[in-house]
Amino acid sequence: MRDRKSWNVPASTFAKNTFNPIRNIIENMQIVPHPDKPMIALSIGDPTVFGNLKPAPEIVEAVVEATRRGSCNGYVSSTGTEAARAAVAKYCSVEDKLELQAKDVVLCSGCSCALDMCITALCSPGQNLLVPRPGFPIYTTLAVGLGVQTKDYNLLPERSWEIDLEMLEASIDDQTAAIVVNNPSNPCGSVYTKEHLIAILEVAARNKVPIIADEIYDHFVFEGQEYHPIASLTEEVPVLSCGGLTKRFLVPGWRMGWITICDRGNVLDQEVRNGLQSLSQRIIGSNTLVQGALPTILANTPQSFFTDTLAQIQANAELSYSILREVPGLNPIMPQGAMYMMVGVDMTMFPGLKNDLELVERLISEESVFCLPGKCFDCPNYMRIVLTVPEPQLREACKRIITFCSRHHASAHVNGLAHAN
Amino acid sequence: MRDRKSWNVPASTFAKNTFNPIRNIIENMQIVPHPDKPMIALSIGDPTVFGNLKPAPEIVEAVVEATRRGSCNGYVSSTGTEAARAAVAKYCSVEDKLELQAKDVVLCSGCSCALDMCITALCSPGQNLLVPRPGFPIYTTLAVGLGVQTKDYNLLPERSWEIDLEMLEASIDDQTAAIVVNNPSNPCGSVYTKEHLIAILEVAARNKVPIIADEIYDHFVFEGQEYHPIASLTEEVPVLSCGGLTKRFLVPGWRMGWITICDRGNVLDQEVRNGLQSLSQRIIGSNTLVQGALPTILANTPQSFFTDTLAQIQANAELSYSILREVPGLNPIMPQGAMYMMVGVDMTMFPGLKNDLELVERLISEESVFCLPGKCFDCPNYMRIVLTVPEPQLREACKRIITFCSRHHASAHVNGLAHAN
Ligand SMILES: Cc1ncc(COP(=O)(O)O)c(C=O)c1O
Ligand SMILES: Cc1ncc(COP(=O)(O)O)c(C=O)c1O
Repeated sequence: MRDRKSWNVPASTFAKNTFNPIRNIIENMQIVPHPDKPMIALSIGDPTVFGNLKPAPEIVEAVVEATRRGSCNGYVSSTGTEAARAAVAKYCSVEDKLELQAKDVVLCSGCSCALDMCITALCSPGQNLLVPRPGFPIYTTLAVGLGVQTKDYNLLPERSWEIDLEMLEASIDDQTAAIVVNNPSNPCGSVYTKEHLIAILEVAARNKVPIIADEIYDHFVFEGQEYHPIASLTEEVPVLSCGGLTKRFLVPGWRMGWITICDRGNVLDQEVRNGLQSLSQRIIGSNTLVQGALPTILANTPQSFFTDTLAQIQANAELSYSILREVPGLNPIMPQGAMYMMVGVDMTMFPGLKNDLELVERLISEESVFCLPGKCFDCPNYMRIVLTVPEPQLREACKRIITFCSRHHASAHVNGLAHAN
Repeated sequence: MRDRKSWNVPASTFAKNTFNPIRNIIENMQIVPHPDKPMIALSIGDPTVFGNLKPAPEIVEAVVEATRRGSCNGYVSSTGTEAARAAVAKYCSVEDKLELQAKDVVLCSGCSCALDMCITALCSPGQNLLVPRPGFPIYTTLAVGLGVQTKDYNLLPERSWEIDLEMLEASIDDQTAAIVVNNPSNPCGSVYTKEHLIAILEVAARNKVPIIADEIYDHFVFEGQEYHPIASLTEEVPVLSCGGLTKRFLVPGWRMGWITICDRGNVLDQEVRNGLQSLSQRIIGSNTLVQGALPTILANTPQSFFTDTLAQIQANAELSYSILREVPGLNPIMPQGAMYMMVGVDMTMFPGLKNDLELVERLISEESVFCLPGKCFDCPNYMRIVLTVPEPQLREACKRIITFCSRHHASAHVNGLAHAN
């Protein structure tokens, strides 16, 4: 028995340390659209919200079939059914370069859960995890909750967001548990060449650091680009690759993600495989209806579905790039894949606006166009736009961005136009 | 850069500390059935494996409809859609006693994930969590991974597995973050009376300790019994109740669980609500197809489905109880709900067998009947049998248990029969 007179139930340190910077920034932002202009959200990384991009009927019917099959309702192994894992292994294998088997696959509740498990399995409190800047903030959310520090390495806009390899290598220390490599990238839309991936692997190999590859945008590359799973390019470096149905199959809500354990040197056999297995038992895996459908989805989704989706996104990338590059003060970086474009903002050209955050806020209040500020990705002087919106909306959004920028541009200030509108 | 000559990638302390005792015990058990007798597994807590218990067609078709609706594929709030949470709030409310709203509900990937989030949100390393013995081992799996110690309080078989309240209260100290109360109980099948639940709440109130209620077997009670959500009986004690579709709706693989935040005194408003919200962002919730179906499932599943399921289980409980209570050396404790029965084993009556673990192993090798040893629930001298098997199999299993027990009973030894078979 203890002596307490009043209730005091604090949250745990784990919960207090877990926070999503995007959410924190957005919640503190002024998001009041202009009353006369319908809002265009170029902020949401969900390809399904606009209604123009939908999963192929084959994908949907595979789940209907699995649901009616009647045999997909029970518990399965916490890492997933043998059939579903074998299907993922086949899907993620690269002939002669990466041969995966069912035992190398752990199904998870979305790619976020896959990343959570990989980071949790590899990193102990006090260790550090190297993450890209600009980068998807979940890595930090996950790590810091666990008492694991993240250290940023830079991506270089002038080199299509390749990794600053010197900085990467200099950041590695005795406490570095893993390097996160996100390719294709959110928020950059970059797709790394084979050569660059090999150079990254060399850094990892020299320093004996395993890689967590966030490959949720696998195969999501524009015409003329090639996607290489990083694990297919090394015989030495152990790679935990995280993927899923989320992006390519246009079903983020289904929460079907996976880890593939790519470890030709058998470095992870000693402990990490078991660690992942144990961690999978905490929440016992992902939905069995989607698992039941997975072999069909991965085998039967028509190529034309992927091609059509990418064609729309690439057309949007080219459209907005060609428009925005002409806007004084803006510097869009053309993406090679995924569904995003980073747009550099030369704040010296917009003397009336404090920073990218204020620029983005004012773009909402004056033009009802919502872009995420670079701050969300730890990358000031940028904003990220999403390329999955329907073309007419994107065109309209670009038009409004032009109006906004010319209104706030230094030259307009000189002419006293800045507040005329 | 660091100086390492060879690969050494250990698992994190978190992963190493996460283990499932049931799995450990089972993996080290001798599970070789008798070659001439088909195996009867009374060990698996999955009501769907035998084919006799199936979700109602209304449940299945609700998911088919949601899948075809086309609007359930995208990201939703990490705690779940407003509609699904509102449906759970309504389902879990008790008129005049427990009024829940959508904001009080967090959808999770199964009840395991709900428990994980509650334990993670409330308990910091160095604190302790009180858990029942015998009890479902996941509480310990989850807590120990986090660096949180569990302390067992006893359930009393002679009082239908009510909690030893004195022991419970004596176990509370300044580091006690929460008490787990599991009602109806796995492995005991006990269902607590209103009076007993109130007595538990009094202990919690006196010591100002919040309760994590594992109510995954809600409403899963036999005729004549009443189920009370513990939160409906207190105005003071904050309760995080964990539930889901898993058991009552016979769909464990769907991974649809939830937390209801029951906190009439607003004790959890300060930090814990936010903590749960933050933790939910780590893996971004549960499958949206099931979320889309949830309002229909909770509102339209016919009462007859629940009644029929329970009638089968209750009949099985009565059948096996009446048979096994006549077996010298066995002492079954009649359950009042859930899907399990604990059977006491007086090991002094079986002098050739070391303990309940060996008894269970020999029951497999000699009779191909698989019960879980009490050891799995930290409760020696018991075995747990599952009551969801089809009646003919259960009858056959009981027959084999009789044969086995008479073969190994002390009286058989005296007569030199023990090894005759
Ligand atoms: C780079 C990156 N990784 C992981 C995720 C999370 O994917 P999931 O929705 O499957 O958890 C996202 C989602 O936007 C992402 O952009
Ligand atoms: C008492 C208890 N709590 C929680 C669970 C886990 O439920 P779920 O499958 O929804 O994670 C179980 C499953 O057997 C259980 O018996």
